[in-house]
Amino acid sequence: MTDHTIASAANADMSAEEFRRHGKTLIDWIAAYLDDPRKYPVLASGRPGDLRHRLPATAPVEREPMEQILRDFDQLVMPMVTHWNHPRFFAYFSISSSAPGILGELLTAALDANAMLWKSCPAATELEQTTVAWILDWLGLPPEWFGMIVDSASNAVLQAVVAARQRAEPESRAQGPSRRLVAYVSEHTHSSVEKAAIAAGVGRSNIRHIGVDTRFGMRADALAETIRLDLSNGLKPFFAAATVGTTSSTAIDPVAEIAEICRENGIWLHVDGAYGGTFGVLPECRHFLNGVERADSFVVNPHKVMMVPLDCSLFYTRAPEMVRAAFALEAEYLKTDVHGAVDYMDYGLALGRRFRALKLWFVLRYFGREGLVAVLRKSMKMAAWLGERISGDARFELVAPVNMGLVCFRLRQGDEATRELMKRINDSGAFFVSHTALGGRFAIRVAIGNIRTEWRDVEELWAAIAGS
Amino acid sequence: MTDHTIASAANADMSAEEFRRHGKTLIDWIAAYLDDPRKYPVLASGRPGDLRHRLPATAPVEREPMEQILRDFDQLVMPMVTHWNHPRFFAYFSISSSAPGILGELLTAALDANAMLWKSCPAATELEQTTVAWILDWLGLPPEWFGMIVDSASNAVLQAVVAARQRAEPESRAQGPSRRLVAYVSEHTHSSVEKAAIAAGVGRSNIRHIGVDTRFGMRADALAETIRLDLSNGLKPFFAAATVGTTSSTAIDPVAEIAEICRENGIWLHVDGAYGGTFGVLPECRHFLNGVERADSFVVNPHKVMMVPLDCSLFYTRAPEMVRAAFALEAEYLKTDVHGAVDYMDYGLALGRRFRALKLWFVLRYFGREGLVAVLRKSMKMAAWLGERISGDARFELVAPVNMGLVCFRLRQGDEATRELMKRINDSGAFFVSHTALGGRFAIRVAIGNIRTEWRDVEELWAAIAGS
Repeated sequence: MTDHTIASAANADMSAEEFRRHGKTLIDWIAAYLDDPRKYPVLASGRPGDLRHRLPATAPVEREPMEQILRDFDQLVMPMVTHWNHPRFFAYFSISSSAPGILGELLTAALDANAMLWKSCPAATELEQTTVAWILDWLGLPPEWFGMIVDSASNAVLQAVVAARQRAEPESRAQGPSRRLVAYVSEHTHSSVEKAAIAAGVGRSNIRHIGVDTRFGMRADALAETIRLDLSNGLKPFFAAATVGTTSSTAIDPVAEIAEICRENGIWLHVDGAYGGTFGVLPECRHFLNGVERADSFVVNPHKVMMVPLDCSLFYTRAPEMVRAAFALEAEYLKTDVHGAVDYMDYGLALGRRFRALKLWFVLRYFGREGLVAVLRKSMKMAAWLGERISGDARFELVAPVNMGLVCFRLRQGDEATRELMKRINDSGAFFVSHTALGGRFAIRVAIGNIRTEWRDVEELWAAIAGS
Repeated sequence: MTDHTIASAANADMSAEEFRRHGKTLIDWIAAYLDDPRKYPVLASGRPGDLRHRLPATAPVEREPMEQILRDFDQLVMPMVTHWNHPRFFAYFSISSSAPGILGELLTAALDANAMLWKSCPAATELEQTTVAWILDWLGLPPEWFGMIVDSASNAVLQAVVAARQRAEPESRAQGPSRRLVAYVSEHTHSSVEKAAIAAGVGRSNIRHIGVDTRFGMRADALAETIRLDLSNGLKPFFAAATVGTTSSTAIDPVAEIAEICRENGIWLHVDGAYGGTFGVLPECRHFLNGVERADSFVVNPHKVMMVPLDCSLFYTRAPEMVRAAFALEAEYLKTDVHGAVDYMDYGLALGRRFRALKLWFVLRYFGREGLVAVLRKSMKMAAWLGERISGDARFELVAPVNMGLVCFRLRQGDEATRELMKRINDSGAFFVSHTALGGRFAIRVAIGNIRTEWRDVEELWAAIAGS
C-alpha cells in the first residue's frame, strides 16, 4: 500500500518460540525454588554497593541475549536477594507468594490492563468488586461496604485521611485544610498512618500518640481525655486509627470502645488490619474484629498472610461518596459513555492501576476458605508452640501475648544480650528475625506465616535461640 | 521432637509438578496471545455487571482445581478484558508489555521481596539504583539526580508536591501547610497533578490553570504574570508542573522558560514526562527535554512506551534531602544496622514496594538503547504517516502537531460528527481510540506505541476513518 520499512529485528519483541523457551525455563526454576527455598540463605549477604558496583554504569547500546540476562540474574542478583518467600523468613511480617498467586501475576503482566476506568478493562473492575466482596463476607463485615484494591496500606490510609478531612472540612478541597485538624494514633500505630497524615497536611504537632495498656492496645480512656482537651483548646478532632494486630506485637486496640468515642465526636475511624485483619476468617479469632463494623474505613492486606504476592492491599469504606468527593476530578480524556459502573480511579490517588484482582481471585479460589483457615491455624499453632518454649525457659521472657503468628521475646539479661542473640541468629544465614521496642525495651520478633514454613523450621529456630 | 500435626493437603501450596504443568500451559497461552492478539476484539464488549453477575456472590469454602479456575479465566474473564497489550489499542496512551518484562514480573512475583529497606532486599534497592541511573544517562539528564521507582506518575507527583511544600514551609511538617501556598499547572496538565496537590492540602482555589498557546503549551508569560499577581496578594507560589508530552495532545511546555521563572521565584518545578520523557532517548527528539535539567523533579513512566509492564514509574529529583525531610519517620521495627545505603521507603508514601527494578533491568538489556530507539521511531513514523493522510483529506483536520506517537484530529463537520465517527470505529471491535477536548472542540486521539503494532494496523485504521 505504501512504501513502509518492514518491521526489523531491532523493533520486534522476542519471538513466540523464544518466549516459550525462556518462560518454561523460568517456570522450572520457580518450581524448584518453591520446592525448597531453604537451599538459599534467607538473608542476603554483602554490603551496600556490592551488586551495583558489579553492574555496568550505563545500559547496553545493543540488545543482549536473554540467556545472558538470566545468567546474571542467577549469578549476580540472587546472592543479594533477601528471601521473603522463604520458610525461615521470620522478620517483619512473614508473607507468602503462593503458586496460584504467581500464575495470576504472570497473566496480569501479559494483559497489561490498566484498571483506571470500568471501560478501560471491565474484567479488572468487576473481578475487583467481586473479590473485595468475597473477603468482606469471609470477615463478616458489612456487605454494603465499598472496597477496592490499592498497592499498600500506606496509600489506603492516605485515602482514609483525605476522605476524613473532606468530611470534617468540606471547604478544605477548595481552600486547603485548617491547621486545627487533629488526628489520633496510638504509640504502636504503624508509622505509615502518621506519614499519610503529614502528607495530607496534618502537622505532626496535631498528631496525638495515645498511650497503650500493658498489652500494648490503645487506652480508650486516654483517647477520650485527649479529645476532650483538644476540643477545649478549640481544635478539631477528625481522624483516628485503631489497629487489629500492631506491627510491633500484634496488639489489638479496643475497636468497639474507640468507635463509640469517635462516633460521639464525629471522628472518622480507620481500622488498620493490614496484618491482623486476615485472622477474622477464623471463627475462633473473629472477635479480633469486634467493633470494626462501626469503622468508617478498614484495610487488610492479602499480600501479608493471605498468600497473595505483593502488592495487594484492600481498602474498604462505608462512605465511598466522601472518598470520591475528596479525590474525583473530571478530565475530558478520561470521560466515557458508560453509566452505572464504578471508575476506581475516582476513589484514590493513582490513575495507573494494575489488574491485581486476578491473582487475588486465583488464590481465593485455589485455597478456598478452608485452605486459608488451615494455613492460618498452622502458623498460629507454631507461634503458640514457640511462645510456650520461650516462656518455659527461665532465661527468656515473652514481652507480649502470642495471639496471631508473632512471638516477641527478650533475654532477661537485657537489651544488649538480646541484640547479640538476634545478631547471632541472623548471622547464621539460616533464619531472619527482626526486632522492635516494647515498653522501652528491645525485643526480638519472630513472625510465622509463610505457607512453606514447617515444624522443623520453627524447631530449629528454637534450637538456635535456646542453644545460645 | 514434638507431637505436631503433619502438614496436610489443606495447608499446602500447589506441588512443584502441578505448578510446572499450569505454569507451562500459561506460558504457551501467553506466547500464542502475544503472537497475535488481533484474534481478540481490542475493546471488551458487555455492560456493567455482566461479569460480576456471572460469578458467585461468595468465595468457595473448599479449594477448587486450577484447571477450573483457568477455564473460567478463559470463558468468563477474557471476553470482558480490554486489551491494552493489543496492536490496535490506540486509546489513552498505547503501551506494551514486552516478553522480557513479563518474564521479569514472573520472577518478581516468585521472590515476593519488599524493597522498603536496603536490608529487606539489597538486590532490589541496588537494581533500582542501577536502572534509574541507566535511564538518566539515556535521557542525558544530570547523573547526580536521585531516582526511584514508584507505581504511578500520580504518586510521583505527590512526592514532588509534598517535598515542595517542605521546602517552601519547613514548619509545615509540624504545623501543617498554610493556606497561602499556590501551585501552577497549565490547562493541559494531567489531572493527577491537581489531585496530588489537593491531597497534599493545597486548596483548589490556590491551583492556577495557566493558559496555553496555539500548540497547547503553557504560556510562560501568563505564568509569570499570574505569579506576580499572587505575590502581590500575599500568597506563596511554591510548586509548578511543566509537561513534556501532555495527555491531550503531547504538547511540550516551554520548560526552560518556566524553569527560569520558577528559579526567580523559588518555586519547585516538577516536569511530567510520564509519556513524552521516553522520547528523549532519540537524538532527534532530545530537544523535547530542553530545560528539564533545571527542574527540581521529573517523572517518566517506563510502563508507557518503554515496553515495561504496569506498573513502573520513575521519580527523579535533584533534592532528595527535601523529599526525605518530608517523608521519613523513624519506627523502631524498621531500623537496621546498615550504614551508607538508601532505604527507599524514606522517600515516599508507600512502605510496601515491589521489586519492580527486575523487569526494568530485563527490558533495558533485552532491547538495548538501539532496540528502544527503533521501536519509538517506528511509532513516530506511523503517527506521522497517519497525520499526513488525515491532513491531506479535506473532510478532516489535525488539531495538534504530531510530534511523538499521537494523532489528534476531528471532522470539520463538527463535534457531533466526530463523536459518531469515534463510536463507529470503536463499535467495530477492531480498534480502540479515545478522545479529548482541544480548544473547546472534541477531538479523536490515536495513540500509536504498542510494540506489535504493524503498518497494516495503522493502514486499516485509516481505511476505517476515511471510509466513514
